Amino acid sequence: MSDTGFSAVVPPDESARLDAQQRHDRLTKPADSLGRLEELGAWIAACQGRCPPAPLTRPRIVIFAGDHGIAAKGVSAYPSEVTAQMVANFLAGGAAINVLAATAGATVRVVDLSVDSAETPAEVAKFKVRRGSGSIDVEDALTGDEVAAAIAAGRAIADEEVDSGADLLVAGDMGIGNTTPAAVLVAALTGAEPVAVVGRGTGIDDRGWMRKAAAIRDALRRARPVSADPVALLRTVAGADIAAMAAFLAQAAVRRTPVVLDGLIAGAAALVAAELAPGAGDWWVAGHRSVEPAHTMVLDHLGLKPLLELDMRLGEGTGAAAAIPILSMAVRILAEMATFADAGVAGPAAG
Amino acid sequence: MSDTGFSAVVPPDESARLDAQQRHDRLTKPADSLGRLEELGAWIAACQGRCPPAPLTRPRIVIFAGDHGIAAKGVSAYPSEVTAQMVANFLAGGAAINVLAATAGATVRVVDLSVDSAETPAEVAKFKVRRGSGSIDVEDALTGDEVAAAIAAGRAIADEEVDSGADLLVAGDMGIGNTTPAAVLVAALTGAEPVAVVGRGTGIDDRGWMRKAAAIRDALRRARPVSADPVALLRTVAGADIAAMAAFLAQAAVRRTPVVLDGLIAGAAALVAAELAPGAGDWWVAGHRSVEPAHTMVLDHLGLKPLLELDMRLGEGTGAAAAIPILSMAVRILAEMATFADAGVAGPAAG
Repeated sequence: MSDTGFSAVVPPDESARLDAQQRHDRLTKPADSLGRLEELGAWIAACQGRCPPAPLTRPRIVIFAGDHGIAAKGVSAYPSEVTAQMVANFLAGGAAINVLAATAGATVRVVDLSVDSAETPAEVAKFKVRRGSGSIDVEDALTGDEVAAAIAAGRAIADEEVDSGADLLVAGDMGIGNTTPAAVLVAALTGAEPVAVVGRGTGIDDRGWMRKAAAIRDALRRARPVSADPVALLRTVAGADIAAMAAFLAQAAVRRTPVVLDGLIAGAAALVAAELAPGAGDWWVAGHRSVEPAHTMVLDHLGLKPLLELDMRLGEGTGAAAAIPILSMAVRILAEMATFADAGVAGPAAG
Repeated sequence: MSDTGFSAVVPPDESARLDAQQRHDRLTKPADSLGRLEELGAWIAACQGRCPPAPLTRPRIVIFAGDHGIAAKGVSAYPSEVTAQMVANFLAGGAAINVLAATAGATVRVVDLSVDSAETPAEVAKFKVRRGSGSIDVEDALTGDEVAAAIAAGRAIADEEVDSGADLLVAGDMGIGNTTPAAVLVAALTGAEPVAVVGRGTGIDDRGWMRKAAAIRDALRRARPVSADPVALLRTVAGADIAAMAAFLAQAAVRRTPVVLDGLIAGAAALVAAELAPGAGDWWVAGHRSVEPAHTMVLDHLGLKPLLELDMRLGEGTGAAAAIPILSMAVRILAEMATFADAGVAGPAAG
């Protein structure tokens, strides 16, 4: 087992969670009538260690961009140059995640870990590990030094965001071909058969599906021997983008910052993060259930029930961003609703 | 059949819906990858008759408040005076709906149709029909004149809101005991057995559940003979609040204004509204699936799949309000995302 270098994860504060549950019973509504909004509010209270929790003023979405050698095997409907083009689109504000983030009151940051381009702006590329990751059906995604650099990058990015005041974090993804390594990680960590984790990604046809299934099968054969060692697994079949994302999700928990998980790519990274930093999952909720079949395996494995099921399969953090307003509502309920006593409203009749 | 006095409902504009579907395919994302957000955006475009649709700047929630004589039979966990107390709480901004509306960018209006109090403010009571509605297990909820007044009120309120610029409407409810008439309406209009529609409402115990089941059975016996006549049905077993809500939902469709439906009470009113104004359902989406069993029957009957399932059962319009940000996102995607051509992003590879 590699030394992963993550500090111990402290669980959310159960005393603040209990305070929130008790406060919910004093608010002017029937007990438990807000369902999951009450659970979420209590969870944020526990994450913050205070009740009522402070409003979410700085939700932050970090998009981890990278290319994948496996894309050359025809596993995606789109050419690899789209990754760099979409990085430019994020920076210009024209992508779906920009629009959903703006509506949700969140901001977006893009980091280039392994885009196959020399042209991303310096600020975006400051953590860049390499151009493209290895073709995981036949070679390792990363070298030992590269996976260490990617993990250090993800940890540093989480630290930067928490130190800048982020009170809710999302890890988004951009990378043509990235559902292939993600599916391999899910199969390696849940024991699923290769065929069960193959999805349509951005929309491949039947021949593409067969190429993708073969790539996943071959990569999974390479992954199984190292599946008990999260760092070796990232090195063998992930890529710098997904390795950084896993470290980011682990470090967010170390730094006691709640996370909304997105779809398959973030979910695969989360499976690894839960190995890198045991207990990290207590700091996460699932935003949306992707239509990618492997994502449901992730949710089951982590014991998470997503807040939304809107048949989305875009990535970028969009499934998590769409759920942020629900979290904002849950927090504001605890902070802003009147109690029965404040409002002069009668409680339930006796008996 | 009574003359219900509603103008014909014109369907949403299919040409604008098609424009929106075609625009989605040009935006920088894989085709169909935003799932239900794409459907919703196209629906709002069709409702507005333009693509891209204008942003939702005036979502409006109208809460229809009223008491119910049946509450005296012990069908609710709360005493009837809570209805008037909650009206005051809405006006003071302390209720759950105030908090969710504020988060969603919506505003709240409360109208007293039949609260059993003489103390609601004049502006709130300007459409008041009576104090409390009849105990529907043994008598009609309303007289013929009263049901006509309630329907006229609901229609006038919808007109006021549309004329004031509302671009999305929600009908919320407040009334101790109101899940009993709502369950009766659902059973009468869907053919369900009484026992299948009895829910826990605000949280009744087993003895209360038995009292509620008996009340629903007795009221349903009175409702069946008039179930083909929506106005007679409202008069017999609804109440002034639910009658006004049904008229409001019908008139919103007549006025070509999209609606997000809330839970059981709004759902029961919507079943009647679909009879009052055939085609009105094309102007509605369902915000949230309530845990009340009769609400799922409403959704099935109307052919609607809710946007959220968060185990809520509060009413007030909260289930609809929680879904408004999803609609805002859907609209902004169409209006603000870059196209492939604008952003210089390559489309799918051929073959």
